[in-house]
Amino acid sequence: MIKTIEYSENLNLEKELARSQFSYDDVNETVENILKDVKKRGDKALFEYTKKFDKVDLKTLEVSEEEIQKAFDTIDKELLEVIKYSHDNIKLFHEKQVRNNFIVKKENGVSLGQIINPIEKVGLYVPGGTAAYPSTVLMNAVPAKIAGCKEIIMVTPPTSDGTILPSLLVAAKIAGVDRIFKVGGAQSIAALSYGTESIPKVYKIVGPGNIYVAMAKKMVYGEVSIDMIAGPSEVLIIADDSANPVHVAADLLSQAEHDKLAASILVTTSKELAENVAEQLEIQLKELEREEIARVSIETQGRIIVTKTIDEAIKISNEIAPEHLELAVSNPFELLTKIKNAGSIFMGHNTPEPLGDYLAGPNHTLPTSGTAKFSSPLSVDDFIKKSSFIYYSKEGLEEVKDKVIKFAESEGLTAHARSVSKRFEK
Amino acid sequence: MIKTIEYSENLNLEKELARSQFSYDDVNETVENILKDVKKRGDKALFEYTKKFDKVDLKTLEVSEEEIQKAFDTIDKELLEVIKYSHDNIKLFHEKQVRNNFIVKKENGVSLGQIINPIEKVGLYVPGGTAAYPSTVLMNAVPAKIAGCKEIIMVTPPTSDGTILPSLLVAAKIAGVDRIFKVGGAQSIAALSYGTESIPKVYKIVGPGNIYVAMAKKMVYGEVSIDMIAGPSEVLIIADDSANPVHVAADLLSQAEHDKLAASILVTTSKELAENVAEQLEIQLKELEREEIARVSIETQGRIIVTKTIDEAIKISNEIAPEHLELAVSNPFELLTKIKNAGSIFMGHNTPEPLGDYLAGPNHTLPTSGTAKFSSPLSVDDFIKKSSFIYYSKEGLEEVKDKVIKFAESEGLTAHARSVSKRFEK
Repeated sequence: MIKTIEYSENLNLEKELARSQFSYDDVNETVENILKDVKKRGDKALFEYTKKFDKVDLKTLEVSEEEIQKAFDTIDKELLEVIKYSHDNIKLFHEKQVRNNFIVKKENGVSLGQIINPIEKVGLYVPGGTAAYPSTVLMNAVPAKIAGCKEIIMVTPPTSDGTILPSLLVAAKIAGVDRIFKVGGAQSIAALSYGTESIPKVYKIVGPGNIYVAMAKKMVYGEVSIDMIAGPSEVLIIADDSANPVHVAADLLSQAEHDKLAASILVTTSKELAENVAEQLEIQLKELEREEIARVSIETQGRIIVTKTIDEAIKISNEIAPEHLELAVSNPFELLTKIKNAGSIFMGHNTPEPLGDYLAGPNHTLPTSGTAKFSSPLSVDDFIKKSSFIYYSKEGLEEVKDKVIKFAESEGLTAHARSVSKRFEK
Repeated sequence: MIKTIEYSENLNLEKELARSQFSYDDVNETVENILKDVKKRGDKALFEYTKKFDKVDLKTLEVSEEEIQKAFDTIDKELLEVIKYSHDNIKLFHEKQVRNNFIVKKENGVSLGQIINPIEKVGLYVPGGTAAYPSTVLMNAVPAKIAGCKEIIMVTPPTSDGTILPSLLVAAKIAGVDRIFKVGGAQSIAALSYGTESIPKVYKIVGPGNIYVAMAKKMVYGEVSIDMIAGPSEVLIIADDSANPVHVAADLLSQAEHDKLAASILVTTSKELAENVAEQLEIQLKELEREEIARVSIETQGRIIVTKTIDEAIKISNEIAPEHLELAVSNPFELLTKIKNAGSIFMGHNTPEPLGDYLAGPNHTLPTSGTAKFSSPLSVDDFIKKSSFIYYSKEGLEEVKDKVIKFAESEGLTAHARSVSKRFEK
């Protein structure tokens, strides 16, 4: 049964909702050794780890054009159409994120500006096994492609017969991935970070993975950039008495089926809704294929919090800063401007969270564990970087020369001052 | 004497220019203990560390309005005017970085959007002692203020008489810092990360610092966000035969005076310029107040690389991805679009790098150590975060329901599928 609590000012939210974190401590040494080994031995180490962990003896790492063609030939045609539809929606939304260079013209021919350049080479990790999701491929590759990255390199572990799931290859091709390699785990993160004979070194690595992958990303961070280390997935639903308990319960469970550590939280002004949702959870849990996972999640991480007002509910939500926020209220647009911290916001009664996982358009890679207080959904911004530029004419420099010299001397940096004064010496 | 090399395809740039890094290994344990202690004992620990490290026994940590007023009364009036001028230029440039929310309207009343919110609480570290720079205050606080951060909290170590340099207080007030506390080192980073009786917990910490501060920022990263851990400062100058060797040498030295590990690199198509700059460096080094630091930097980290063509010079620069890049050529705007990786670009013969340090407008907090391949100058973007939102009408959901169900089921996430199908059950 889910735990229900009444909100009061004295409630210690942080304690009550103590969020779980994945534990990485056990894999530290293993991952470190794999990184070192791949750095030293390159492809040779990759083949060995793939044999060891993925139980397949590969001759080449790169996926061939023939294999991609075969994936298109064999994929369920209905799924292919859905992937294309999803791709187009994701592309349309992310294209709005593209930013332009700007230039500021000032007096005396002085000009300043900001230039956007893509990160030239990026790596995309895609999990294999039961978490092999074509939606992951689309959500990570599409913004990189729109940003203009020159080389988008995907790595994913092969199945034991040495192949990759057709839906992953199809999604990769549609999204514009340039090259695909059959390698997973910490060894693939090492390959992308250092480069091997087959796999090019990249500047940034994105995409979700198991604890070995997450730990490897943590370790190579600095050498290359990474997107984030995601915690367990979360949904917070703010609901008033206009919400349907059957739908609310189904939405909470769609989150709970991800992981035993996933958190599903309902904050509502309606005691009646709270009771009905609790009851519905019990009914619907029994109907789930992934009942065991979802039940542990609901019973340990799930909460229903009853508040007196919607403003209290929003205050709780802003404090929790959830990855996914559903506004299951009659007037969602009225609440939108009050939301300060949330990854993605699902508005009204007809926008269940899975819409965003697959095909509405916005990214499904979102800040977890309260990091929405300071970080953002994955976007085109994650695949570009900016350079500023400054141009001064002789007259422009002359006008400000005394100011630069004054400032530099006040900071004790006299060689800074001299770089200006030298230009006006006779 | 600076080392001069001729470029060839076989030159191993990475080896030749092996960049120095600050070493943090020695301070690990010290910093960890300070963090734990401040987390546990709050203000009490802060007072003790301030007594120990800054040699002053404070009664209160917060800078009072009277102290700020006194700073305005005592500051050099000419410097005050320069700080104001610099502030206005920085503000003008960074205001161009402000981004708008967007909304995408689709069929059936479906709409999607991206909302920008400021990071509510940010902390700004400002070094004390010989590196107490009002320009640091401006460059970090102005973009935070423009982003709309509600609480901008500055921490900086007091001098041994318990005061803060007037120029820092004046710059903070002009830039819109909300509160200033007299505390520095790892203890101040702990205070901003965990909060104490006096100092509010923030969500992001920015600003440069010594190795204790840098290590503390590394350690609290995850709990809060941080800007970056900066390596030694660098300049790369691309020059053709139109460049003046006196000016080029002065610019290289303005970088070299920062730190013995600072790197000053000239890449030029002109052998004659290379020789003249090497000679000028020797002449000008002797004239510097910070000769000792600059000489070690030039002799160990400095290089002159002679290339056959400007394109080779650009290739080298893109590979190095310098923090500061000067284009000391006759046609700098022609080269600008070829620059892929650089923090800030200084164009032409009248734009010495110190212009950007102080008052041109663009930020002086820039990616070092080659990280310009994947990261950007500090900007308003560093003080905001985005949320996406999705609104579907009943008709909109009905239109896509089979697609969501198909996608979810293909990924084995049936509770995801049910969150949609439940809404259409009779």
